[in-house]
Amino acid sequence: MDQAEDRLRLATALAEARAGLAEGGVPIGAALYDADGALLGRGRNRRVQDGDPSLHAETAAFRAAGRRRTYHGTTMVTTLSPCWYCSGLVRQFGISRVVIGEAATFRGGHEWLAEHSVEVVVLDDPGCTALMRDFVITHPDLWNEDIGAIDE
Amino acid sequence: MDQAEDRLRLATALAEARAGLAEGGVPIGAALYDADGALLGRGRNRRVQDGDPSLHAETAAFRAAGRRRTYHGTTMVTTLSPCWYCSGLVRQFGISRVVIGEAATFRGGHEWLAEHSVEVVVLDDPGCTALMRDFVITHPDLWNEDIGAIDE
Repeated sequence: MDQAEDRLRLATALAEARAGLAEGGVPIGAALYDADGALLGRGRNRRVQDGDPSLHAETAAFRAAGRRRTYHGTTMVTTLSPCWYCSGLVRQFGISRVVIGEAATFRGGHEWLAEHSVEVVVLDDPGCTALMRDFVITHPDLWNEDIGAIDE
Repeated sequence: MDQAEDRLRLATALAEARAGLAEGGVPIGAALYDADGALLGRGRNRRVQDGDPSLHAETAAFRAAGRRRTYHGTTMVTTLSPCWYCSGLVRQFGISRVVIGEAATFRGGHEWLAEHSVEVVVLDDPGCTALMRDFVITHPDLWNEDIGAIDE
């Protein structure tokens, strides 16, 4: 998979993240693609919008893709390094690749995934990093709630 | 926490699992309790019922508990060893204890959780084991779909 294609897919995930921010939500977006590059599902963190802590961006995209017999060959594209919850999703369902916008503001389980045969690509996208960095600064309580972090 | 209390809580999770079976679903149930023993949320796997692959029993119970600032001191009770997806949930959100009905028909990430400071109790409950063993034998396709397993 060439990086131009991955960057195009990241734009879809980033559009989800920005839509989430506009709704007052946690600005993380994701999209799941099959081996042929077809979009299976896209989504964004819905903690604020739906009052639902179980819908992180990756789980929202996974949910939107519906029931599937296999995830072999699929790629999960996400604006931010996936937390343990979303990394566990990727490992359990055998999602083959993870493309990550940035891992500078938060490091989840992507190195663990790479150790377990998942192809991991970190794009170091400045747009993703700026979006998340601003959010963490302006909404520390909401961000800590979303990752289960204990306040200082 | 004494084991009698844990077994009482397991009965709630098992009631969820049995309700799921009666609905034609994957018979796994879970319930989340706070440090004082109050029920925060309960749920069951909803893959079949809602066509939603993101709702495993543990994520359904977590969702039912709504938004919370912290999970410190909480206990997740589940009829079956949590898969990587649900183990990731427990680790990310800092759920303190996991009580498991059985880990004989499926071993998820509970040992990994124990390595990461989660208190893990496996009750070896015959009712949970029988329910799951029968389901795996009678519905292998649905079970493999639910854990992303590749068919033989």
